[in-house]
Amino acid sequence: MNGGAAVEPELQILPVAGLGEVHPGDDLSQMLGDAIAGSPSGLLDGDVLVLCQKVVSKAEGRVVELSEVEVSDEAAAFASRFDKDAALVELAMREAVEILRMQDGHLITATAKGFVAANSGIDRSNQAEAGQVTLLPLDSDASARALRERLQSRFKVECALLISDTFGRPWRMGQVDVAIGAAGLEVLDDFQGREDWKGRPLEHTLIAVADQLCAAAGLLMGKAAGVPAVLIRGFAYQRSAGSDASQLLRPRENDLFR
Amino acid sequence: MNGGAAVEPELQILPVAGLGEVHPGDDLSQMLGDAIAGSPSGLLDGDVLVLCQKVVSKAEGRVVELSEVEVSDEAAAFASRFDKDAALVELAMREAVEILRMQDGHLITATAKGFVAANSGIDRSNQAEAGQVTLLPLDSDASARALRERLQSRFKVECALLISDTFGRPWRMGQVDVAIGAAGLEVLDDFQGREDWKGRPLEHTLIAVADQLCAAAGLLMGKAAGVPAVLIRGFAYQRSAGSDASQLLRPRENDLFR
Repeated sequence: MNGGAAVEPELQILPVAGLGEVHPGDDLSQMLGDAIAGSPSGLLDGDVLVLCQKVVSKAEGRVVELSEVEVSDEAAAFASRFDKDAALVELAMREAVEILRMQDGHLITATAKGFVAANSGIDRSNQAEAGQVTLLPLDSDASARALRERLQSRFKVECALLISDTFGRPWRMGQVDVAIGAAGLEVLDDFQGREDWKGRPLEHTLIAVADQLCAAAGLLMGKAAGVPAVLIRGFAYQRSAGSDASQLLRPRENDLFR
Repeated sequence: MNGGAAVEPELQILPVAGLGEVHPGDDLSQMLGDAIAGSPSGLLDGDVLVLCQKVVSKAEGRVVELSEVEVSDEAAAFASRFDKDAALVELAMREAVEILRMQDGHLITATAKGFVAANSGIDRSNQAEAGQVTLLPLDSDASARALRERLQSRFKVECALLISDTFGRPWRMGQVDVAIGAAGLEVLDDFQGREDWKGRPLEHTLIAVADQLCAAAGLLMGKAAGVPAVLIRGFAYQRSAGSDASQLLRPRENDLFR
């Protein structure tokens, strides 16, 4: 270990073990609290707790059996043309308030809450429940707020809570984790706030801190493929009572790419 | 500290201090090596070293004085209409091989290497050098490979090296860090590789690991606003001799949003 030199970690990313399988109707904040209480990391003031979307959706009953979905002609035609699951296409269309692209086997939509995602953010569940999918939570910011309040009250700390999901990007390959729910922190950090050499304010100085935090947590969620909760410790986020993940959505009228 | 329970960190994100100001022609690998040698973290086998684009561009002389740029009529007109810097617009147009959008004050382009970014990825330099901008490295994957080789040889370890830049996203507010150069690791991780309940391969199972690593590093680069090099320790990336950041660019023919 580098000649025994002391290592002073600046940020730690820690898995929360022991959450167990989550089912519709489960008290997720209780289960999470128990997992945290049983883990060596605990929950400290200033921690950021990142939860994957799937456990939140499951606890909230946003689970659908694909075999029980009544498929429309349009969904069936698109699915058959591109060898996709017709029930999944049907659900994605139902969850969408706008279809951005429906071509080449891709279905990119905007949801009622404004998330732009493939298949309206619908995920297949895990292997144990083949044939089930999870829909996005109805209001993931409300979910984040409620979970944070329960955990803060139980552990007597102030923390931030993020709900994370993996989204694709139009010009880049692969998916990254982004925040679909947030509570307790400013999701956008205007850390530069500078002017250019003629005194004009610099554009594009906002950093999507909540998305960077979710991406960092995704390094653990992805590898283990079964870590649904991750703590980020040591990050000096800006505390906020009002900021949430809806602020990460570009307003429709400023969108150059729909 | 949580009743004294031992905390077992899974991932650490560590700043590399002491790099100092980088100037055109500087030997960046030597400077980086010296900074690492002087830092308590050192460089261990399996570390991921993330460098911000700006120091790489500077060392490679990709620095331009805005006052010396000859501005075309088109750049001048666009800049004047939206109160932008005409020299910056001119440079962005020169660096572009394709202009995706040039409207509402936004100039979104594709560079010769295929990066889609605002203003062709041109950054204003820091306050000390008002009036200067940095262009993206000519070949940031080659830069990453060369830097990695020099560091591996000096420290006798195998590591991964990423060059990071902050890019905007079409549907989300704020910028996140992504990899524009990579060496030593598979940039895309096909960690799921599952089939759906009817045995069809799941789509969209690739995770952009290199981008997640850059976003994690960005948590330190952003806050301190002066940390140009960050180590990520404890992440079990997949080693690779051939993978690089060009693999993170969606091929033009699969792009639904140009």
